[in-house]
Amino acid sequence: MEGLLINSIKKFFEKDRFANSLGIKLVRVEPGYAETKMEIAERHLNAINIVQGGAIFTLADFAFAAASNADGKVTVGINANISYFKASKGKVLIAKAREVSGSKKIANYNVDVFDENNDLTAQLSLTGYVKEEKIDFNK
Amino acid sequence: MEGLLINSIKKFFEKDRFANSLGIKLVRVEPGYAETKMEIAERHLNAINIVQGGAIFTLADFAFAAASNADGKVTVGINANISYFKASKGKVLIAKAREVSGSKKIANYNVDVFDENNDLTAQLSLTGYVKEEKIDFNK
Amino acid sequence: MEGLLINSIKKFFEKDRFANSLGIKLVRVEPGYAETKMEIAERHLNAINIVQGGAIFTLADFAFAAASNADGKVTVGINANISYFKASKGKVLIAKAREVSGSKKIANYNVDVFDENNDLTAQLSLTGYVKEEKIDFNK
Amino acid sequence: MEGLLINSIKKFFEKDRFANSLGIKLVRVEPGYAETKMEIAERHLNAINIVQGGAIFTLADFAFAAASNADGKVTVGINANISYFKASKGKVLIAKAREVSGSKKIANYNVDVFDENNDLTAQLSLTGYVKEEKIDFNK
Repeated sequence: MEGLLINSIKKFFEKDRFANSLGIKLVRVEPGYAETKMEIAERHLNAINIVQGGAIFTLADFAFAAASNADGKVTVGINANISYFKASKGKVLIAKAREVSGSKKIANYNVDVFDENNDLTAQLSLTGYVKEEKIDFNK
Repeated sequence: MEGLLINSIKKFFEKDRFANSLGIKLVRVEPGYAETKMEIAERHLNAINIVQGGAIFTLADFAFAAASNADGKVTVGINANISYFKASKGKVLIAKAREVSGSKKIANYNVDVFDENNDLTAQLSLTGYVKEEKIDFNK
Repeated sequence: MEGLLINSIKKFFEKDRFANSLGIKLVRVEPGYAETKMEIAERHLNAINIVQGGAIFTLADFAFAAASNADGKVTVGINANISYFKASKGKVLIAKAREVSGSKKIANYNVDVFDENNDLTAQLSLTGYVKEEKIDFNK
Repeated sequence: MEGLLINSIKKFFEKDRFANSLGIKLVRVEPGYAETKMEIAERHLNAINIVQGGAIFTLADFAFAAASNADGKVTVGINANISYFKASKGKVLIAKAREVSGSKKIANYNVDVFDENNDLTAQLSLTGYVKEEKIDFNK
């Protein structure tokens, strides 16, 4: 995919105010694949001082959203399943979303979440519904 | 449960800096049950202008965390499954977490998420692992 | 719904040779709701002598299939999540499937599985995709 | 792992009467990995003439059970999530279960299900709870 379009896609997803407000960055995106990154800060912790499950989920869900919408067809999540494997170590979390199967109306993604040691800390499988609406990335 | 202890439990969960920073309030809590509430603002929206899935997930996950830890035994989420039913209407979301089954080591919860019209917009089932560690709510 | 149609629907689902071969009966069915029943026998047990997870899953999945197809539109499962709560007691298992939400293309169901003591032994949430195809129950 | 022990493990899982009665074979097993195989017959079909979801689930669940119990510690499934990608083609289905993460008490597995064309038709993630009980494969 050419760089100009990739830049437009990235710009579009910067409009995700929720991901933005959590400090999540879209590192890489193309149709069917995306990576996101979050530097862990105090504001991501829960009452027992580990990264809140919702922060990990959001990091992964944003990677899924970018990867599944990058072809310009609006895809909305209808189901997501997350398994947490271990408490994350270090100061950064990275999520990698990859399409495992897709039909005209349904898209299936897996997302792996790694910590600073490159240990797999969580894994998600997500199901998206592909709508008729299109996204114009150049607007 | 007496009011003093409930207040200590609420105070403890205010230390969830992630939920806090999203504007999520713990409205009600007792062992096995909790309600959380979020006033929807611009910062909760994604790039296609609906509430980000991660915001809905966090609202529900926080209700689960409060309900499942309220007996003072540390319970950590090991799996969560979320289904999104419809885009939410109005300015507020409410999550209600309820224990459906529990053994010594495993706790199972369902969470319903309602919008301002009291429509069910999402539903989660969560599995928690009960650790040996205890929480001292009076510290 | 009138009895004649209900009978046609039941007859149609008797063509589920898999459910049939496991001894699963469709006890009740209408659009959006169904109950199935299985008398537990030696052939449903696994190597550690409890009911195999796949037998419980099939009982529930068949209830979902009947309830979600009973309006005559072909609905296929795209995702299912099952949580097992406790080993079942007694000689019979009953599954009750109920629609929790539905749109034109997506149907969401919950299924509760009860044992002979009426204890909840497992719970599922299932997502179905509604196809254009129709079922003619009178054929 | 030496052949003698592998043979004892296989023999043990032949006691899964449910998998057996469906014609499911345990093709390969070692701690953390297993493959199962099912030749599709009329008895595996549902009312709309495709392989019943419960048959696919059982094939995968049996691979998980074999792989996760092969170290001799009883592991029971507490949660499973299945996504169906496409109707299977051909006369055989193969499931491959692999451990993705494990702690002392919790085991996480992924299972891929392939059809005769080697197309991925379904995928599962499963969570198991490791009990204190041991299995004696030589009994």
